[in-house]
Amino acid sequence: MERQMQDRALRTRELLLRAAAEEFDAAGYAGTGLNKIAKRAGLTVGALYFHFESKEGIARAVMMAQPESIEPHVDTQGLQRIVDITRVWSHQLLKDPLLRAGVRLSVEQGSFGVNDISPYLQWRDVMEQCLCDARDSGELLPGVDPRWVAEFVVSACTGVQLYAQLVNGRKDLPERTVEMWRLLLPGIATPGTLPRIDLSPRRGDKS
Amino acid sequence: MERQMQDRALRTRELLLRAAAEEFDAAGYAGTGLNKIAKRAGLTVGALYFHFESKEGIARAVMMAQPESIEPHVDTQGLQRIVDITRVWSHQLLKDPLLRAGVRLSVEQGSFGVNDISPYLQWRDVMEQCLCDARDSGELLPGVDPRWVAEFVVSACTGVQLYAQLVNGRKDLPERTVEMWRLLLPGIATPGTLPRIDLSPRRGDKS
Repeated sequence: MERQMQDRALRTRELLLRAAAEEFDAAGYAGTGLNKIAKRAGLTVGALYFHFESKEGIARAVMMAQPESIEPHVDTQGLQRIVDITRVWSHQLLKDPLLRAGVRLSVEQGSFGVNDISPYLQWRDVMEQCLCDARDSGELLPGVDPRWVAEFVVSACTGVQLYAQLVNGRKDLPERTVEMWRLLLPGIATPGTLPRIDLSPRRGDKS
Repeated sequence: MERQMQDRALRTRELLLRAAAEEFDAAGYAGTGLNKIAKRAGLTVGALYFHFESKEGIARAVMMAQPESIEPHVDTQGLQRIVDITRVWSHQLLKDPLLRAGVRLSVEQGSFGVNDISPYLQWRDVMEQCLCDARDSGELLPGVDPRWVAEFVVSACTGVQLYAQLVNGRKDLPERTVEMWRLLLPGIATPGTLPRIDLSPRRGDKS
């Protein structure tokens, strides 16, 4: 019985998170009210306050939900894994409002007085793990530091999606992500690893 | 006499632009009022409206003023020039509120309903010119496209400064910019050019 209630609470939280993401994605932080979120979820504002303490609280939860919508869908290892994570991300951003809102809020958080590095550190840790595995398998050039590269890849992806959004609503983000790797890999991967990394079209498209 | 009036108008515009930048840099777009800008400049709101049609108009002018605070201070050519521009930029961002406000507004513009790629295209054009010169001097690997690389460098710099800002208020942005080039150059420059690119510390620091 308690288990059923927990499951229902989790489903309600997920419902609210998705409703909030759809509002934030469309209208940004300032343009989104708790009333609208609750209405979209078909719930009361009271229910919303039961799960999230404030608008900022729900915005933070949306920002932190990014990797969980990507990571489980990638089954490769090492360098190929970091490449694939960014490629799935580049396709999912076009389709998934929860991911898109997370990215938008992370970039615009300064405009609503929040300066929270956690959503980026979360991505950094995911990337760093791939690069440590890559290093342990001998895929990295000597002197390549997994943490620095991870931080750069997170930074570059943030900038690339922002640029692509302004150019054409992110339509060519998957292509830009592949081009990023074409530029980066020669400075990261050993010459033997380089030709084995699969950058072929549609690899990142899990739809 | 007319010339004197034009000079004075230009100086007043510059004064307003700097005052606006200091306000936007500190408080963001939403937190900045035209009254505060005029007061900081020691002028009336009427004077402000004479030079800029609206708060959005002055924000756009701040966004567009970025390259002119960097480009004239760089006297190198080709690949070394694009590297130096980003390195001077990484140091100037720590010191120059006009540049900092331009970057902040460009990143956060979505939060105030503006989606203007022009500030980024302006940077892209500067970078692309360096890369075309680099190609014409035989510095680029075959198949490297100046436009794509220029767009990626602008995107990556945007993301790197955002990340550095959240980590430590951009204190290590100069170091992150050098690390970016260490990663990127092997995928861009011919093996003969690579060792000639100067990434030594403090090269970008023009203070």
